[in-house]
Amino acid sequence: MTRTGRRPGISTTRATILEIARRTFADAGYAGASMRAIAAEAGVDPSVVVHFFGSKDGLFQAAVGWPFDPTGLTQEVESKAEGDIGAGLARTFLRYWDDPKTGPSLLAMLRSAMAHPTSAALLREFLARNMFATVTELVQGDDVALRVDLAAGQLVGVAVLRYGLRVEPIASQSVEELVEWLAPVLNGYLGTERRKALT
Amino acid sequence: MTRTGRRPGISTTRATILEIARRTFADAGYAGASMRAIAAEAGVDPSVVVHFFGSKDGLFQAAVGWPFDPTGLTQEVESKAEGDIGAGLARTFLRYWDDPKTGPSLLAMLRSAMAHPTSAALLREFLARNMFATVTELVQGDDVALRVDLAAGQLVGVAVLRYGLRVEPIASQSVEELVEWLAPVLNGYLGTERRKALT
Repeated sequence: MTRTGRRPGISTTRATILEIARRTFADAGYAGASMRAIAAEAGVDPSVVVHFFGSKDGLFQAAVGWPFDPTGLTQEVESKAEGDIGAGLARTFLRYWDDPKTGPSLLAMLRSAMAHPTSAALLREFLARNMFATVTELVQGDDVALRVDLAAGQLVGVAVLRYGLRVEPIASQSVEELVEWLAPVLNGYLGTERRKALT
Repeated sequence: MTRTGRRPGISTTRATILEIARRTFADAGYAGASMRAIAAEAGVDPSVVVHFFGSKDGLFQAAVGWPFDPTGLTQEVESKAEGDIGAGLARTFLRYWDDPKTGPSLLAMLRSAMAHPTSAALLREFLARNMFATVTELVQGDDVALRVDLAAGQLVGVAVLRYGLRVEPIASQSVEELVEWLAPVLNGYLGTERRKALT
């Protein structure tokens, strides 16, 4: 295939770094992955990796294919909670899945993780570090990790039926109708039932 | 590839019928699909389809890749409920996913449905006809279809995290520990909270 008007070298280098990063994060986890080692394996200076991806967090986000910046998500959930953390979580989750700028990437990422062990390991690590950690900040009581998994299971399952399989009537329900059903379930798992938003 | 000891004609015919059946059930739905038309398109007598798959239900089950006979599932749920329908549903669902004879096929089916629109349409039709119909028999109140979707979303999401992505700690939790958490959520959706099993 011939290309016109672009320097193939740049996109090839970026893709090479990403591929090595995906394998490294999946094998070694976030903490065990080294920007320097990834750069060395790609045959580039570490500054090139920083140039493309900004930081280790940025490289990790790009490697997993996450379509938005996960920093500040706790604040976003709380700002959308209006006093009900379960509602804030469900609303934030469904809005990113409903958004045509982010939803298709989330679905592609979930599909890939269901199909390939490396993608599953990457997503697992990303969820543990960036998503479940966010939710855990909001949770009270024992068994926190299991209860976060169960709440995540509810949300992921709704996403599978609504966006993946397009099962009716859940596929054409409004976000707020679903939030009304999901909020008490999430609050039940997370022990946030009678808790006000922190903001 | 050479084969020994088998007549390739039989497995080829079976595969051809299945492929046509998959497309036909996905396009026309269960009610709109005709055994006779599927046989005609495969270039075989309808008795050949019956020989391989027994009935239209059997052909549909084989086409979607469902790994066990779904008839009698209502009775199975009730026999596993011990007075708690939510617990019976969660227990039945998790045991089929945990079972090495059926679990991998369920995961393969879900993966395929997430990846291919035809598989998604097939699974949607099968769930509506064979699974959600079973659950709906047990449900009381308004919005039945949406509440069944939400309960199914909880179970499917647990399956995705536990068997698909292998997220911990939910991946190594015992079935009964999960049943304890899931039962009240399913009962809440299905309005079966204070209802005894029908048996």
